[in-house]
Amino acid sequence: MDRRSFNRRLLAGGAVAATGITSLSVASASAPAARAADTPPRTAPAGGQVRRLTMYAETLPNGQMGYGFERGKASIPGPPIELNEGDTVHIEFENTTDVPVSLHVHGVDYDIANDGTRMNKSHVEPGATRTYTWRTHAPGPRADGTWQPGSAGYWHYHDHVVGTDHGTGGIRKGLYGPVIVRRKGDILPDKQFTIVFNDMTINNKPAAESPDFKATVGDRIEIVMITHGEFYHTFHVHGHRWADNRTGLLTGPDDPSRVIDNKITGPADSFGFQIIAGERGGAGAWMYHCHVQSHSDMGMAGLLLIAKADGTIPGYDPDHPHHTAASPGTAGSGGSASGGSASGAGAHAGH
Amino acid sequence: MDRRSFNRRLLAGGAVAATGITSLSVASASAPAARAADTPPRTAPAGGQVRRLTMYAETLPNGQMGYGFERGKASIPGPPIELNEGDTVHIEFENTTDVPVSLHVHGVDYDIANDGTRMNKSHVEPGATRTYTWRTHAPGPRADGTWQPGSAGYWHYHDHVVGTDHGTGGIRKGLYGPVIVRRKGDILPDKQFTIVFNDMTINNKPAAESPDFKATVGDRIEIVMITHGEFYHTFHVHGHRWADNRTGLLTGPDDPSRVIDNKITGPADSFGFQIIAGERGGAGAWMYHCHVQSHSDMGMAGLLLIAKADGTIPGYDPDHPHHTAASPGTAGSGGSASGGSASGAGAHAGH
Amino acid sequence: MDRRSFNRRLLAGGAVAATGITSLSVASASAPAARAADTPPRTAPAGGQVRRLTMYAETLPNGQMGYGFERGKASIPGPPIELNEGDTVHIEFENTTDVPVSLHVHGVDYDIANDGTRMNKSHVEPGATRTYTWRTHAPGPRADGTWQPGSAGYWHYHDHVVGTDHGTGGIRKGLYGPVIVRRKGDILPDKQFTIVFNDMTINNKPAAESPDFKATVGDRIEIVMITHGEFYHTFHVHGHRWADNRTGLLTGPDDPSRVIDNKITGPADSFGFQIIAGERGGAGAWMYHCHVQSHSDMGMAGLLLIAKADGTIPGYDPDHPHHTAASPGTAGSGGSASGGSASGAGAHAGH
Repeated sequence: MDRRSFNRRLLAGGAVAATGITSLSVASASAPAARAADTPPRTAPAGGQVRRLTMYAETLPNGQMGYGFERGKASIPGPPIELNEGDTVHIEFENTTDVPVSLHVHGVDYDIANDGTRMNKSHVEPGATRTYTWRTHAPGPRADGTWQPGSAGYWHYHDHVVGTDHGTGGIRKGLYGPVIVRRKGDILPDKQFTIVFNDMTINNKPAAESPDFKATVGDRIEIVMITHGEFYHTFHVHGHRWADNRTGLLTGPDDPSRVIDNKITGPADSFGFQIIAGERGGAGAWMYHCHVQSHSDMGMAGLLLIAKADGTIPGYDPDHPHHTAASPGTAGSGGSASGGSASGAGAHAGH
Repeated sequence: MDRRSFNRRLLAGGAVAATGITSLSVASASAPAARAADTPPRTAPAGGQVRRLTMYAETLPNGQMGYGFERGKASIPGPPIELNEGDTVHIEFENTTDVPVSLHVHGVDYDIANDGTRMNKSHVEPGATRTYTWRTHAPGPRADGTWQPGSAGYWHYHDHVVGTDHGTGGIRKGLYGPVIVRRKGDILPDKQFTIVFNDMTINNKPAAESPDFKATVGDRIEIVMITHGEFYHTFHVHGHRWADNRTGLLTGPDDPSRVIDNKITGPADSFGFQIIAGERGGAGAWMYHCHVQSHSDMGMAGLLLIAKADGTIPGYDPDHPHHTAASPGTAGSGGSASGGSASGAGAHAGH
Repeated sequence: MDRRSFNRRLLAGGAVAATGITSLSVASASAPAARAADTPPRTAPAGGQVRRLTMYAETLPNGQMGYGFERGKASIPGPPIELNEGDTVHIEFENTTDVPVSLHVHGVDYDIANDGTRMNKSHVEPGATRTYTWRTHAPGPRADGTWQPGSAGYWHYHDHVVGTDHGTGGIRKGLYGPVIVRRKGDILPDKQFTIVFNDMTINNKPAAESPDFKATVGDRIEIVMITHGEFYHTFHVHGHRWADNRTGLLTGPDDPSRVIDNKITGPADSFGFQIIAGERGGAGAWMYHCHVQSHSDMGMAGLLLIAKADGTIPGYDPDHPHHTAASPGTAGSGGSASGGSASGAGAHAGH
């Protein structure tokens, strides 16, 4: 069972015994295999569950490092962790590497013992295990009458101790992954792709192997975009655009947010958005890339491969994709190629 | 007839026969020559028109490159293309240079044949012509009940093939320009200026010739700000400020957007806003500049020259403007100097 | 009397004779010493006052430069200047240094004679004095029916002439400070900290002395974040988050703004937000840092020291804070250590 299949089983509630997880993202279990374009999309349920998850930090065969839900299945980026506001997750974290590692998270609630820093003695020695607890909450009024924001957002986790006390070595080697917290009623995607601009790589891939992502016209794609490392970047997608707000979706006609197709980001920034694949542009091999010119020229570019319902992609020759000057050869690892079986929550491509 | 006059004729509907354009921006044709400060501003009409436009890529005498609506009239930035949500524009694009060139656009709707990339075989060989079609749409509900954003925004076009498959050489030489898509009811400006931070230049001008822009107190100025190249910048204007949202104007008292006078931007980012010239600050030579210190010191600075009604600018000596350490000499190329005759839509300065 | 005590006296109206200031921030005078968590927070009153302030530019013993309200008391950052929309402030500015200096402000209203630039002859020669006037205004409809934004925001002032005509030398040496303009009804903080990422320093401190800031669980902390110099940064705080809008606080459930804990910023960008110290995370030594990896590794990191009500900070050893690889020794200059006595408006820590 590969990691992706594992995730699907996990998300459908089928892997309880093996991992102790009752449900990482219950909503996805009810995802229909096919959805008509005029059917209201699935939405996130209210949270409030207590979830248990096992996670491993591992050294990969190529010397990079990754997080994974299963021993021997670490990936870069690490697997998405999806929560609904109100959920708590206890992560039993085992460090299988030969250096101290940690799990530091952005956005959600945690106390100082779950900070994932050396300073707060919340890292994990080689071979050791530690349970990290993250909590989330829905928005609402405080006792003093002011408004408390909820935890919903496109967040991420990463190491904070490998190499330096800020995890510079761990992040460089691949110790990072996405965290998605949804609000009750948030629209759920059909497919989810994580794109991390880490130094001059995408998802730690060499330029010639930048990840491509596959979908079919009409799919509701969610892109989780994270930046790490040293450089600023600008994230651009051809033929699609999104709102520069919490969800990437306008709340309605009164939402004043800017609609964009290009966004400057710096290390540890993260955002997410949903697009309808090929909406108003149709099928095709649509580039996404960093728009800093030298970065794209050096290979920070990949493809959203959006197929027609019959599976064809107009003008796209997989043997000569050449989305960069250098031919990518076996470009990327594919994305969730099989439309119907990829669940919205947790289906994750590109690693 | 110079390009600006040409644009005015064009926009007023007078150049139809010569160019095949029925109306590039009909709204401006009804712009009054003078507008009282207590008169509601003109607003954008509903779109839905099909427009035709001829555009040329040219090599300029100094070796730079530009786009233009007329043969021999290319400029840097290229001329603004204004649309109203719902409009379609067919651009008959001729490449008069000796290298392949393309026209890639941000924000609006186009299919893969109009991508303007070599990968999608949508570039144009030397001497050849190709028609690019861009579409736009108003916001509204989708069949599934979710909200689809409209095309309105401050976007831009640029080459995607000269030098590299990302157009690094073409952009560096000047192949870029603004696209403004308006929503029905959007406020129209009296004057419009495009400022492009392209590598370490403003609008590809040498530091000593950074463009200045002229207006009169009370003019509703629209600034379209685009970044290109390698570097991040921060765009700052003295004495004026704007909202960091879609239009740069707050929608009203409930709009939570930050009001700013300085904004970080990276390559291919674009935004726009309107300011009332001299509002609450009066006439003067107001600097605009990149606020990265070495960038401003090296000349990424120009002036908003805001005159009193009598045409004078307090404290400004055009023979010694010295807005940078180095005296700019013949600073800038002027802006729309003649207030009354510049129409809001399409009047464009600085090139 | 040290500067901080001075500010408190000043803000409580007790220093009028000495400085000519009638009231720099009247609201704070009525701040209760302790506030129950279920009591509505204090809010900003309507503005409309005319205030007078004396300010000095000084060369510090270590060769850096600073602004201060009192002769011999200059600090880096300079002292916060708080206004309510509608207020006017006249700043009698004396340059005690041996080079020309100016006071240039962002966001508020000023005419060209108050621009603080050499070009507009609004700088101040050594030993000379000049009165700068800044005005602010509440939002409201213009005569033409459009909406005029108010002055509220987290702004800043800085030199514009030392070293270069853009003040590169003055900013590098420390000539900068925060300006906070509040709208009637804006929530007032219990404590306020200013954090300036200036080149590779925080508040011009050497890496080993990055400022720490102290508060008690439940305090409403306001952070004013400003960037200066050459580099882009990403500002990150552990265990806390804020809204990416005008106030950093969501206006309510319909505010579409993204909630973030990390934000890219460039020179002269500024923003502010309020957090409830330790809300949902509790007491602890919480890092804040630039998330550009080499920047944090080189020392752009400090601590929010959030104590329990009994004053203890779990896991924190002040003799070995090591929030960076290098032990900071006497890390920081403290923040407003004494909870009850620090007033919300004008209480300022870290310099």
